Amino acid sequence: MRATGRRSSDGPRTRPQGQESRAAILNTAGEIASKEGLEQLTMRRLASAVGMSKSGLYAHFASKEELQLTTIEHVCEVFEEKVLRDPPDDPGAGLAALLERWLAFFERKVFPGGCFLITSAVEFASRRGAVREALEAGLDRELAALEASIDHANATGDLRPERDASQTAFELHSILMNAHALFQVKKDPAVFKRARAAIHRLVGEPA
Amino acid sequence: MRATGRRSSDGPRTRPQGQESRAAILNTAGEIASKEGLEQLTMRRLASAVGMSKSGLYAHFASKEELQLTTIEHVCEVFEEKVLRDPPDDPGAGLAALLERWLAFFERKVFPGGCFLITSAVEFASRRGAVREALEAGLDRELAALEASIDHANATGDLRPERDASQTAFELHSILMNAHALFQVKKDPAVFKRARAAIHRLVGEPA
Repeated sequence: MRATGRRSSDGPRTRPQGQESRAAILNTAGEIASKEGLEQLTMRRLASAVGMSKSGLYAHFASKEELQLTTIEHVCEVFEEKVLRDPPDDPGAGLAALLERWLAFFERKVFPGGCFLITSAVEFASRRGAVREALEAGLDRELAALEASIDHANATGDLRPERDASQTAFELHSILMNAHALFQVKKDPAVFKRARAAIHRLVGEPA
Repeated sequence: MRATGRRSSDGPRTRPQGQESRAAILNTAGEIASKEGLEQLTMRRLASAVGMSKSGLYAHFASKEELQLTTIEHVCEVFEEKVLRDPPDDPGAGLAALLERWLAFFERKVFPGGCFLITSAVEFASRRGAVREALEAGLDRELAALEASIDHANATGDLRPERDASQTAFELHSILMNAHALFQVKKDPAVFKRARAAIHRLVGEPA
């Protein structure tokens, strides 16, 4: 049985216990990784942010590496749910809707410092280990989802003329990643107008 | 007068003194920032990498922040010289040559972990201070150089039809940055083929 996130007595906020507490901790962990970088996500930093003792946190994560891996998994799940998966009420929404959800995910700051996946993947690219592999796997899933959506748009006739799925996925991914990076640095949402214009030029409106 | 980079007696290699020593130290600092991230570039890490004592390094840099700022300046100078400036033997080379130098800079691993400017700029985006400002300024210079080159190509007739310089700079920058990021993560030079195809589709061959 998992421990229930015992708080130190000076914890600044009351938090729910058990699974809910774990979800709240992971959200905070995602925010830290997003704003400060995955490398800054340590047990000490997280304990201070959630108002728990370090020993309380160790009931949730055996090590810094497990904390980083679980946070990557959590952020990828949020991203899959909010961006990659078609919403239940619009199952055939297609490529244009996927790209719009992706931009909105950055624009609405679902994570306050944006999606750290690519930044962290580059930062960890020279290292070995499970964290680096998890980041690369997350990136691969993003690219595969884009490619599958382009394949689908080719097959249904939404894209005419048909596009090379790998090449077009690279180009769309470039626009999404650069919009994210420049928005983080410049804080100017005008970059999303540029991104939408670039996407429109590449794949046009849905048919 | 600047100290000449006194080495600890167990320094692994003999290094030249004075300015040359400083250049060698900055190259190593650039390599560390490139491979491990700017945040990992500490006096301790650099001292160990160049085989100097920490006190010897303090003769060159008063603080970690000064070390980071000087390294950013150094890397930006190398980038300006090798990419942004037209080579002396080909002064009117234009946009296509600029883009090719840019890709080659990544592909040939001038810095072994690539150009850390955009990765670090995103990593530092939530912070305040001189390092964050230097990174943003470096990014602004990159984008301005791209835009100026597009303006020039519009004016000389190299680009027909004329392109919106800001929009096209954003799109070209997207391709360059994503090629860099994916090359770092996947280590597969095939991404440069994709980048060249995308650039060709955007701005074609030089006239």
